[in-house]
Amino acid sequence: MNPIIQSLFDRKSVRVFQDKPVSQENVNLIIDAGIQAPSAGNQQLYTILHIQDQGIKDSLSVLCDNQPFIAKAPVVLVFLADCRRWLDCYRYAGTEARRPGPGDLILAIQDALIAAQNTVTAAESLGLGSCYIGDIMENREKLTALLSLDPLVFPATLVVYGYPSDSQVKRPKPPRPRRDFIVQTDRYSPLSEEALRTLHGELNPQPGYDFDGAITAFCLRKYASDFARELNRSAGEYLKEFI
Amino acid sequence: MNPIIQSLFDRKSVRVFQDKPVSQENVNLIIDAGIQAPSAGNQQLYTILHIQDQGIKDSLSVLCDNQPFIAKAPVVLVFLADCRRWLDCYRYAGTEARRPGPGDLILAIQDALIAAQNTVTAAESLGLGSCYIGDIMENREKLTALLSLDPLVFPATLVVYGYPSDSQVKRPKPPRPRRDFIVQTDRYSPLSEEALRTLHGELNPQPGYDFDGAITAFCLRKYASDFARELNRSAGEYLKEFI
Repeated sequence: MNPIIQSLFDRKSVRVFQDKPVSQENVNLIIDAGIQAPSAGNQQLYTILHIQDQGIKDSLSVLCDNQPFIAKAPVVLVFLADCRRWLDCYRYAGTEARRPGPGDLILAIQDALIAAQNTVTAAESLGLGSCYIGDIMENREKLTALLSLDPLVFPATLVVYGYPSDSQVKRPKPPRPRRDFIVQTDRYSPLSEEALRTLHGELNPQPGYDFDGAITAFCLRKYASDFARELNRSAGEYLKEFI
Repeated sequence: MNPIIQSLFDRKSVRVFQDKPVSQENVNLIIDAGIQAPSAGNQQLYTILHIQDQGIKDSLSVLCDNQPFIAKAPVVLVFLADCRRWLDCYRYAGTEARRPGPGDLILAIQDALIAAQNTVTAAESLGLGSCYIGDIMENREKLTALLSLDPLVFPATLVVYGYPSDSQVKRPKPPRPRRDFIVQTDRYSPLSEEALRTLHGELNPQPGYDFDGAITAFCLRKYASDFARELNRSAGEYLKEFI
Protein backbone atom coordinates (compact mmCIF):
# COMPACT_ATOMS: atom_id res chain seq x y z
CA MET A 1 0.00 0.00 0.00
CA ASN A 2 1.53 3.33 -1.04
CA PRO A 3 1.74 6.24 1.43
CA ILE A 4 -1.19 8.09 -0.13
CA ILE A 5 -3.57 5.16 0.14
CA GLN A 6 -2.18 4.41 3.60
CA SER A 7 -3.08 7.95 4.61
CA LEU A 8 -6.65 7.50 3.33
CA PHE A 9 -6.91 4.33 5.40
CA ASP A 10 -5.41 5.95 8.51
CA ARG A 11 -7.59 9.06 8.57
CA LYS A 12 -10.25 9.05 11.26
CA SER A 13 -12.47 11.77 12.68
CA VAL A 14 -10.95 13.95 15.40
CA ARG A 15 -13.17 15.89 17.80
CA VAL A 16 -10.69 16.98 20.49
CA PHE A 17 -7.87 19.27 19.49
CA GLN A 18 -4.67 20.46 21.10
CA ASP A 19 -4.67 24.09 22.09
CA LYS A 20 -2.25 24.83 19.29
CA PRO A 21 -2.97 27.13 16.37
CA VAL A 22 -2.72 26.03 12.76
CA SER A 23 -0.39 28.27 10.76
CA GLN A 24 -1.88 30.47 8.07
CA GLU A 25 0.42 28.71 5.62
CA ASN A 26 -1.13 25.35 6.45
CA VAL A 27 -4.67 26.73 6.33
CA ASN A 28 -3.93 28.11 2.88
CA LEU A 29 -2.43 24.82 1.74
CA ILE A 30 -5.49 22.90 2.92
CA ILE A 31 -7.86 25.29 1.20
CA ASP A 32 -5.83 25.35 -1.99
CA ALA A 33 -5.86 21.54 -2.07
CA GLY A 34 -9.64 21.82 -1.87
CA ILE A 35 -9.83 24.27 -4.74
CA GLN A 36 -7.66 21.96 -6.86
CA ALA A 37 -10.31 19.23 -6.56
CA PRO A 38 -12.37 17.99 -9.50
CA SER A 39 -15.34 20.24 -10.17
CA ALA A 40 -18.28 20.01 -12.59
CA GLY A 41 -17.20 21.88 -15.72
CA ASN A 42 -14.36 23.38 -13.65
CA GLN A 43 -16.95 25.76 -12.21
CA GLN A 44 -16.14 25.47 -8.49
CA LEU A 45 -19.80 25.60 -7.53
CA TYR A 46 -18.98 26.41 -3.92
CA THR A 47 -17.79 29.14 -1.61
CA ILE A 48 -15.78 28.35 1.51
CA LEU A 49 -16.45 30.39 4.64
CA HIS A 50 -13.44 30.53 6.94
CA ILE A 51 -15.03 31.15 10.34
CA GLN A 52 -12.68 33.22 12.44
CA ASP A 53 -15.10 35.10 14.70
CA GLN A 54 -15.35 33.29 18.04
CA GLY A 55 -18.95 34.40 18.48
CA ILE A 56 -19.91 32.75 15.21
CA LYS A 57 -18.02 29.58 16.15
CA ASP A 58 -19.93 29.54 19.43
CA SER A 59 -23.25 29.96 17.62
CA LEU A 60 -22.38 27.24 15.11
CA SER A 61 -21.60 24.83 17.94
CA VAL A 62 -25.13 25.40 19.24
CA LEU A 63 -26.93 25.40 15.88
CA CYS A 64 -25.14 22.22 14.81
CA ASP A 65 -26.84 20.00 17.40
CA ASN A 66 -24.97 21.41 20.41
CA GLN A 67 -21.47 20.12 19.78
CA PRO A 68 -19.14 22.33 21.85
CA PHE A 69 -15.98 21.01 20.21
CA ILE A 70 -16.87 23.05 17.12
CA ALA A 71 -16.34 26.25 19.11
CA LYS A 72 -12.94 25.02 20.26
CA ALA A 73 -11.63 23.95 16.85
CA PRO A 74 -8.67 26.00 15.63
CA VAL A 75 -9.93 25.96 12.02
CA VAL A 76 -13.60 25.96 11.02
CA LEU A 77 -14.61 25.93 7.35
CA VAL A 78 -18.17 25.96 6.03
CA PHE A 79 -18.52 24.64 2.49
CA LEU A 80 -21.40 26.35 0.77
CA ALA A 81 -22.95 24.94 -2.39
CA ASP A 82 -23.09 28.22 -4.31
CA CYS A 83 -25.69 28.45 -7.06
CA ARG A 84 -25.46 32.21 -7.08
CA ARG A 85 -21.94 33.02 -8.35
CA TRP A 86 -22.39 31.72 -11.91
CA LEU A 87 -25.91 33.10 -12.09
CA ASP A 88 -24.43 36.52 -11.35
CA CYS A 89 -21.81 35.97 -14.07
CA TYR A 90 -24.56 35.22 -16.59
CA ARG A 91 -26.44 38.33 -15.55
CA TYR A 92 -23.37 40.57 -15.76
CA ALA A 93 -22.60 39.09 -19.17
CA GLY A 94 -26.07 40.18 -20.29
CA THR A 95 -27.57 36.70 -20.52
CA GLU A 96 -30.96 35.84 -19.14
CA ALA A 97 -30.68 32.56 -17.28
CA ARG A 98 -33.25 30.33 -15.58
CA ARG A 99 -33.29 29.89 -11.81
CA PRO A 100 -31.24 26.95 -10.52
CA GLY A 101 -33.10 23.66 -10.13
CA PRO A 102 -32.59 20.65 -7.87
CA GLY A 103 -30.01 19.12 -10.21
CA ASP A 104 -27.96 22.31 -10.13
CA LEU A 105 -28.11 22.30 -6.34
CA ILE A 106 -27.04 18.67 -6.06
CA LEU A 107 -24.14 19.25 -8.49
CA ALA A 108 -23.03 22.16 -6.33
CA ILE A 109 -23.31 20.08 -3.15
CA GLN A 110 -21.16 17.45 -4.84
CA ASP A 111 -18.56 20.00 -5.86
CA ALA A 112 -18.48 21.27 -2.28
CA LEU A 113 -18.01 17.79 -0.80
CA ILE A 114 -15.34 16.77 -3.28
CA ALA A 115 -13.40 19.91 -2.39
CA ALA A 116 -14.01 19.32 1.33
CA GLN A 117 -12.61 15.80 1.13
CA ASN A 118 -9.45 17.14 -0.51
CA THR A 119 -9.02 19.53 2.41
CA VAL A 120 -9.45 16.61 4.82
CA THR A 121 -6.82 14.55 2.99
CA ALA A 122 -4.46 17.52 2.84
CA ALA A 123 -4.98 18.19 6.56
CA GLU A 124 -4.23 14.56 7.43
CA SER A 125 -0.94 14.81 5.51
CA LEU A 126 0.00 17.79 7.70
CA GLY A 127 -0.78 15.95 10.93
CA LEU A 128 -4.09 17.73 11.34
CA GLY A 129 -7.24 15.93 12.41
CA SER A 130 -10.63 16.86 11.05
CA CYS A 131 -14.31 16.16 11.48
CA TYR A 132 -17.30 16.65 9.19
CA ILE A 133 -20.42 18.17 10.74
CA GLY A 134 -23.49 17.34 8.65
CA ASP A 135 -25.64 19.16 11.22
CA ILE A 136 -24.77 22.41 9.45
CA MET A 137 -27.88 21.70 7.33
CA GLU A 138 -30.10 22.21 10.39
CA ASN A 139 -31.72 25.43 11.59
CA ARG A 140 -31.95 27.10 8.22
CA GLU A 141 -33.48 30.33 9.48
CA LYS A 142 -30.91 31.00 12.22
CA LEU A 143 -27.96 29.83 10.15
CA THR A 144 -29.00 31.98 7.21
CA ALA A 145 -29.05 35.01 9.48
CA LEU A 146 -25.77 34.08 11.21
CA LEU A 147 -23.79 33.57 8.00
CA SER A 148 -25.72 36.01 5.76
CA LEU A 149 -26.54 33.17 3.39
CA ASP A 150 -28.14 33.87 0.04
CA PRO A 151 -31.30 31.90 -0.86
CA LEU A 152 -29.32 30.25 -3.68
CA VAL A 153 -26.55 29.13 -1.34
CA PHE A 154 -26.78 25.90 0.67
CA PRO A 155 -24.54 24.94 3.62
CA ALA A 156 -23.32 21.62 2.27
CA THR A 157 -20.98 20.77 5.12
CA LEU A 158 -18.88 22.12 7.93
CA VAL A 159 -15.42 20.76 8.64
CA VAL A 160 -13.29 21.46 11.69
CA TYR A 161 -9.52 20.93 11.79
CA GLY A 162 -6.79 20.98 14.39
CA TYR A 163 -3.95 19.04 15.93
CA PRO A 164 -5.44 15.95 17.59
CA SER A 165 -5.17 15.48 21.34
CA ASP A 166 -3.19 12.47 22.56
CA SER A 167 -6.34 10.58 23.40
CA GLN A 168 -7.68 11.16 19.88
CA VAL A 169 -4.44 9.93 18.34
CA LYS A 170 -4.78 6.73 20.36
CA ARG A 171 -8.50 6.26 19.71
CA PRO A 172 -8.95 3.35 17.29
CA LYS A 173 -10.65 4.11 13.99
CA PRO A 174 -14.14 2.58 13.92
CA PRO A 175 -14.06 -0.38 11.54
CA ARG A 176 -15.61 -0.18 8.10
CA PRO A 177 -17.76 -2.87 6.49
CA ARG A 178 -16.11 -5.29 4.14
CA ARG A 179 -16.22 -4.39 0.46
CA ASP A 180 -18.66 -7.27 -0.23
CA PHE A 181 -21.40 -5.43 1.65
CA ILE A 182 -20.85 -2.11 -0.14
CA VAL A 183 -20.00 -3.11 -3.71
CA GLN A 184 -22.41 -4.77 -6.11
CA THR A 185 -21.93 -5.75 -9.72
CA ASP A 186 -23.90 -4.04 -12.50
CA ARG A 187 -27.28 -3.73 -10.77
CA TYR A 188 -28.58 -2.74 -7.35
CA SER A 189 -30.26 -5.18 -5.07
CA PRO A 190 -31.13 -4.66 -1.40
CA LEU A 191 -29.03 -6.68 1.02
CA SER A 192 -30.82 -9.61 2.58
CA GLU A 193 -31.64 -9.72 6.26
CA GLU A 194 -28.94 -12.35 6.66
CA ALA A 195 -26.35 -10.16 4.94
CA LEU A 196 -27.26 -7.15 7.09
CA ARG A 197 -27.06 -9.20 10.29
CA THR A 198 -23.68 -10.57 9.18
CA LEU A 199 -22.43 -7.06 8.31
CA HIS A 200 -23.24 -5.68 11.75
CA GLY A 201 -22.04 -8.82 13.46
CA GLU A 202 -18.66 -8.40 11.79
CA LEU A 203 -18.44 -4.75 12.81
CA ASN A 204 -19.31 -5.68 16.41
CA PRO A 205 -17.42 -8.88 17.13
CA GLN A 206 -17.82 -8.61 20.90
CA PRO A 207 -19.60 -11.63 22.46
CA GLY A 208 -23.28 -11.12 23.05
CA TYR A 209 -23.76 -8.49 20.34
CA ASP A 210 -27.49 -8.08 19.92
CA PHE A 211 -28.42 -6.86 16.42
CA ASP A 212 -32.04 -6.04 17.26
CA GLY A 213 -31.20 -4.13 20.42
CA ALA A 214 -28.17 -2.32 19.04
CA ILE A 215 -29.84 -1.28 15.79
CA THR A 216 -32.97 -0.14 17.61
CA ALA A 217 -30.86 1.95 19.99
CA PHE A 218 -28.93 3.41 17.05
CA CYS A 219 -32.19 4.26 15.30
CA LEU A 220 -33.50 6.07 18.36
CA ARG A 221 -30.22 7.94 18.87
CA LYS A 222 -29.74 8.95 15.24
CA TYR A 223 -32.46 8.37 12.69
CA ALA A 224 -35.46 8.93 14.98
CA SER A 225 -33.79 11.78 16.88
CA ASP A 226 -34.89 15.39 17.15
CA PHE A 227 -31.83 16.53 15.24
CA ALA A 228 -32.63 14.18 12.33
CA ARG A 229 -36.17 15.57 12.21
CA GLU A 230 -34.77 19.10 12.23
CA LEU A 231 -32.21 18.17 9.54
CA ASN A 232 -35.00 17.03 7.24
CA ARG A 233 -37.23 19.99 7.97
CA SER A 234 -34.43 22.48 7.42
CA ALA A 235 -33.09 20.78 4.27
CA GLY A 236 -36.63 20.81 2.89
CA GLU A 237 -36.80 24.56 3.46
CA TYR A 238 -33.55 25.14 1.59
CA LEU A 239 -34.76 22.91 -1.26
CA LYS A 240 -37.90 24.98 -1.79
CA GLU A 241 -35.78 27.62 -3.51
CA PHE A 242 -34.71 25.05 -6.10
CA ILE A 243 -37.98 23.25 -6.85
CA MET B 1 4.43 20.83 -0.49
CA ASN B 2 4.34 17.20 0.63
CA PRO B 3 3.71 14.36 -1.86
CA ILE B 4 0.08 13.89 -0.79
CA ILE B 5 -0.84 17.54 -1.30
CA GLN B 6 1.21 17.57 -4.51
CA SER B 7 -0.88 14.66 -5.75
CA LEU B 8 -4.11 16.55 -4.98
CA PHE B 9 -2.76 19.49 -6.97
CA ASP B 10 -1.63 17.31 -9.87
CA ARG B 11 -4.83 15.35 -10.34
CA LYS B 12 -6.85 16.35 -13.39
CA SER B 13 -9.76 14.72 -15.20
CA VAL B 14 -8.88 12.03 -17.74
CA ARG B 15 -11.32 11.08 -20.49
CA VAL B 16 -9.14 9.01 -22.82
CA PHE B 17 -7.66 5.79 -21.50
CA GLN B 18 -5.03 3.36 -22.68
CA ASP B 19 -6.36 0.01 -23.77
CA LYS B 20 -4.87 -1.56 -20.67
CA PRO B 21 -6.86 -3.28 -17.96
CA VAL B 22 -6.70 -2.27 -14.32
CA SER B 23 -5.80 -5.19 -12.07
CA GLN B 24 -8.43 -6.52 -9.68
CA GLU B 25 -5.98 -5.77 -6.87
CA ASN B 26 -5.90 -2.10 -7.82
CA VAL B 27 -9.67 -1.91 -8.25
CA ASN B 28 -10.06 -3.37 -4.77
CA LEU B 29 -7.53 -0.94 -3.33
CA ILE B 30 -9.34 2.02 -4.88
CA ILE B 31 -12.70 0.84 -3.58
CA ASP B 32 -11.36 0.06 -0.12
CA ALA B 33 -9.84 3.56 0.06
CA GLY B 34 -13.35 4.83 -0.70
CA ILE B 35 -14.92 2.75 2.04
CA GLN B 36 -12.34 4.05 4.52
CA ALA B 37 -13.57 7.60 3.92
CA PRO B 38 -15.33 9.66 6.57
CA SER B 39 -19.02 8.84 6.73
CA ALA B 40 -21.93 10.31 8.73
CA GLY B 41 -22.16 8.27 11.91
CA ASN B 42 -19.90 5.67 10.23
CA GLN B 43 -23.01 4.51 8.36
CA GLN B 44 -21.62 4.32 4.78
CA LEU B 45 -24.84 5.66 3.33
CA TYR B 46 -23.93 4.46 -0.16
CA THR B 47 -23.62 1.42 -2.35
CA ILE B 48 -21.05 1.23 -5.13
CA LEU B 49 -22.03 -0.45 -8.38
CA HIS B 50 -19.05 -1.86 -10.23
CA ILE B 51 -20.26 -1.89 -13.84
CA GLN B 52 -18.68 -4.81 -15.66
CA ASP B 53 -21.30 -5.61 -18.28
CA GLN B 54 -20.32 -3.96 -21.57
CA GLY B 55 -23.95 -3.52 -22.57
CA ILE B 56 -24.63 -1.53 -19.40
CA LYS B 57 -21.50 0.58 -19.97
CA ASP B 58 -22.74 1.30 -23.49
CA SER B 59 -26.16 2.31 -22.18
CA LEU B 60 -24.63 4.50 -19.49
CA SER B 61 -22.55 6.32 -22.09
CA VAL B 62 -25.80 7.18 -23.92
CA LEU B 63 -27.88 8.01 -20.85
CA CYS B 64 -25.13 10.24 -19.43
CA ASP B 65 -25.41 12.87 -22.17
CA ASN B 66 -23.84 10.73 -24.93
CA GLN B 67 -20.26 10.49 -23.77
CA PRO B 68 -18.76 7.47 -25.55
CA PHE B 69 -15.59 7.46 -23.43
CA ILE B 70 -17.67 6.06 -20.57
CA ALA B 71 -18.21 2.85 -22.55
CA LYS B 72 -14.46 2.56 -23.17
CA ALA B 73 -13.34 3.13 -19.58
CA PRO B 74 -11.66 0.08 -18.01
CA VAL B 75 -13.31 0.74 -14.61
CA VAL B 76 -16.77 2.25 -14.15
CA LEU B 77 -18.18 2.80 -10.67
CA VAL B 78 -21.60 4.25 -9.88
CA PHE B 79 -21.88 5.71 -6.38
CA LEU B 80 -25.43 5.36 -5.13
CA ALA B 81 -26.70 7.39 -2.20
CA ASP B 82 -28.43 4.51 -0.42
CA CYS B 83 -31.26 5.43 1.93
CA ARG B 84 -32.58 1.89 1.88
CA ARG B 85 -29.91 -0.22 3.61
CA TRP B 86 -30.30 1.26 7.10
CA LEU B 87 -34.05 1.41 6.74
CA ASP B 88 -34.00 -2.33 6.11
CA CYS B 89 -31.80 -2.80 9.20
CA TYR B 90 -34.32 -0.93 11.32
CA ARG B 91 -37.14 -3.04 9.93
CA TYR B 92 -35.29 -6.32 10.49
CA ALA B 93 -34.49 -5.18 14.04
CA GLY B 94 -38.21 -4.74 14.61
CA THR B 95 -38.20 -0.94 14.73
CA GLU B 96 -40.72 1.17 12.91
CA ALA B 97 -38.86 4.00 11.20
CA ARG B 98 -40.05 7.02 9.23
CA ARG B 99 -39.38 7.33 5.50
CA PRO B 100 -36.15 9.14 4.62
CA GLY B 101 -36.45 12.88 4.05
CA PRO B 102 -34.45 15.36 1.98
CA GLY B 103 -31.84 15.80 4.71
CA ASP B 104 -31.25 12.06 4.83
CA LEU B 105 -30.85 11.99 1.07
CA ILE B 106 -28.37 14.86 1.05
CA LEU B 107 -26.34 13.25 3.86
CA ALA B 108 -26.21 10.07 1.78
CA ILE B 109 -25.15 11.99 -1.33
CA GLN B 110 -22.39 13.59 0.71
CA ASP B 111 -21.23 10.23 2.02
CA ALA B 112 -21.15 8.93 -1.55
CA LEU B 113 -19.12 11.87 -2.83
CA ILE B 114 -16.64 11.79 0.04
CA ALA B 115 -16.04 8.11 -0.68
CA ALA B 116 -15.82 8.79 -4.41
CA GLN B 117 -13.15 11.44 -3.90
CA ASN B 118 -11.09 9.00 -1.86
CA THR B 119 -11.24 6.54 -4.78
CA VAL B 120 -10.11 9.31 -7.13
CA THR B 121 -7.17 10.19 -4.88
CA ALA B 122 -6.25 6.52 -4.48
CA ALA B 123 -6.46 6.01 -8.26
CA GLU B 124 -4.19 8.99 -8.90
CA SER B 125 -1.59 7.50 -6.55
CA LEU B 126 -1.63 4.32 -8.66
CA GLY B 127 -1.12 6.21 -11.92
CA LEU B 128 -4.79 5.92 -12.85
CA GLY B 129 -6.75 8.81 -14.30
CA SER B 130 -10.39 9.37 -13.47
CA CYS B 131 -13.37 11.49 -14.41
CA TYR B 132 -16.60 12.32 -12.58
CA ILE B 133 -19.81 12.14 -14.60
CA GLY B 134 -22.54 14.21 -12.96
CA ASP B 135 -24.85 13.32 -15.86
CA ILE B 136 -25.65 10.06 -14.08
CA MET B 137 -28.46 12.05 -12.40
CA GLU B 138 -30.23 12.38 -15.77
CA ASN B 139 -32.84 10.06 -17.28
CA ARG B 140 -34.20 8.73 -14.04
CA GLU B 141 -36.71 6.35 -15.60
CA LYS B 142 -34.27 4.61 -17.97
CA LEU B 143 -31.43 4.55 -15.46
CA THR B 144 -33.64 3.11 -12.76
CA ALA B 145 -34.60 0.29 -15.10
CA LEU B 146 -31.02 -0.25 -16.32
CA LEU B 147 -29.48 -0.50 -12.85
CA SER B 148 -32.54 -1.86 -10.99
CA LEU B 149 -32.47 1.13 -8.67
CA ASP B 150 -34.66 1.24 -5.61
CA PRO B 151 -36.84 4.34 -5.11
CA LEU B 152 -34.79 5.15 -1.99
CA VAL B 153 -31.49 4.99 -3.87
CA PHE B 154 -30.13 7.97 -5.80
CA PRO B 155 -27.30 7.84 -8.37
CA ALA B 156 -25.02 10.42 -6.76
CA THR B 157 -22.18 10.17 -9.22
CA LEU B 158 -20.41 7.99 -11.74
CA VAL B 159 -16.63 7.83 -11.90
CA VAL B 160 -14.56 6.23 -14.64
CA TYR B 161 -10.93 5.18 -14.17
CA GLY B 162 -8.12 3.95 -16.36
CA TYR B 163 -4.54 4.52 -17.41
CA PRO B 164 -4.41 7.90 -19.17
CA SER B 165 -3.44 8.11 -22.84
CA ASP B 166 -0.26 10.02 -23.67
CA SER B 167 -2.23 13.01 -24.88
CA GLN B 168 -4.18 13.11 -21.61
CA VAL B 169 -0.97 12.99 -19.59
CA LYS B 170 0.30 16.00 -21.53
CA ARG B 171 -2.96 17.94 -21.40
CA PRO B 172 -2.51 20.86 -18.99
CA LYS B 173 -4.84 20.95 -16.00
CA PRO B 174 -7.38 23.77 -16.38
CA PRO B 175 -6.43 26.52 -13.94
CA ARG B 176 -8.41 27.06 -10.74
CA PRO B 177 -9.50 30.44 -9.38
CA ARG B 178 -7.35 32.05 -6.75
CA ARG B 179 -8.34 31.38 -3.15
CA ASP B 180 -9.47 35.01 -2.74
CA PHE B 181 -12.43 34.38 -5.03
CA ILE B 182 -13.53 31.18 -3.29
CA VAL B 183 -12.87 31.86 0.39
CA GLN B 184 -14.71 34.43 2.47
CA THR B 185 -14.40 35.23 6.16
CA ASP B 186 -17.26 34.54 8.56
CA ARG B 187 -20.19 35.58 6.35
CA TYR B 188 -21.28 35.11 2.76
CA SER B 189 -21.47 37.94 0.33
CA PRO B 190 -21.97 37.71 -3.42
CA LEU B 191 -18.90 38.64 -5.47
CA SER B 192 -19.13 42.01 -7.17
CA GLU B 193 -19.28 42.32 -10.94
CA GLU B 194 -15.73 43.62 -10.88
CA ALA B 195 -14.51 40.63 -8.88
CA LEU B 196 -16.25 38.18 -11.22
CA ARG B 197 -14.78 39.86 -14.28
CA THR B 198 -11.34 39.78 -12.67
CA LEU B 199 -11.75 36.10 -11.73
CA HIS B 200 -12.56 35.08 -15.30
CA GLY B 201 -9.95 37.40 -16.73
CA GLU B 202 -7.31 35.71 -14.60
CA LEU B 203 -8.43 32.25 -15.69
CA ASN B 204 -8.33 33.35 -19.34
CA PRO B 205 -5.24 35.50 -19.70
CA GLN B 206 -5.16 35.31 -23.51
CA PRO B 207 -5.34 38.73 -25.21
CA GLY B 208 -8.80 39.74 -26.35
CA TYR B 209 -10.67 37.61 -23.80
CA ASP B 210 -14.27 38.73 -23.93
CA PHE B 211 -16.09 38.08 -20.63
CA ASP B 212 -19.57 38.79 -22.00
CA GLY B 213 -19.15 36.61 -25.07
CA ALA B 214 -17.33 33.77 -23.32
CA ILE B 215 -19.72 33.60 -20.38
CA THR B 216 -22.76 33.76 -22.65
CA ALA B 217 -21.36 30.93 -24.78
CA PHE B 218 -20.63 28.89 -21.64
CA CYS B 219 -24.16 29.49 -20.39
CA LEU B 220 -25.65 28.28 -23.65
CA ARG B 221 -23.37 25.22 -23.76
CA LYS B 222 -23.85 24.23 -20.11
CA TYR B 223 -26.43 25.93 -17.97
CA ALA B 224 -29.04 26.55 -20.67
CA SER B 225 -28.41 23.21 -22.39
CA ASP B 226 -30.83 20.36 -22.95
CA PHE B 227 -28.80 18.13 -20.63
CA ALA B 228 -29.00 20.67 -17.81
CA ARG B 229 -32.76 20.85 -18.25
CA GLU B 230 -32.92 17.05 -18.17
CA LEU B 231 -30.63 16.95 -15.12
CA ASN B 232 -33.01 19.19 -13.20
CA ARG B 233 -36.14 17.36 -14.32
CA SER B 234 -34.69 13.98 -13.46
CA ALA B 235 -33.22 15.08 -10.11
CA GLY B 236 -36.63 16.53 -9.25
CA GLU B 237 -38.24 13.16 -9.93
CA TYR B 238 -35.80 11.37 -7.64
CA LEU B 239 -36.40 13.98 -4.95
CA LYS B 240 -40.14 13.37 -4.91
CA GLU B 241 -39.54 10.15 -2.99
CA PHE B 242 -37.92 12.14 -0.20
CA ILE B 243 -40.22 15.13 0.15
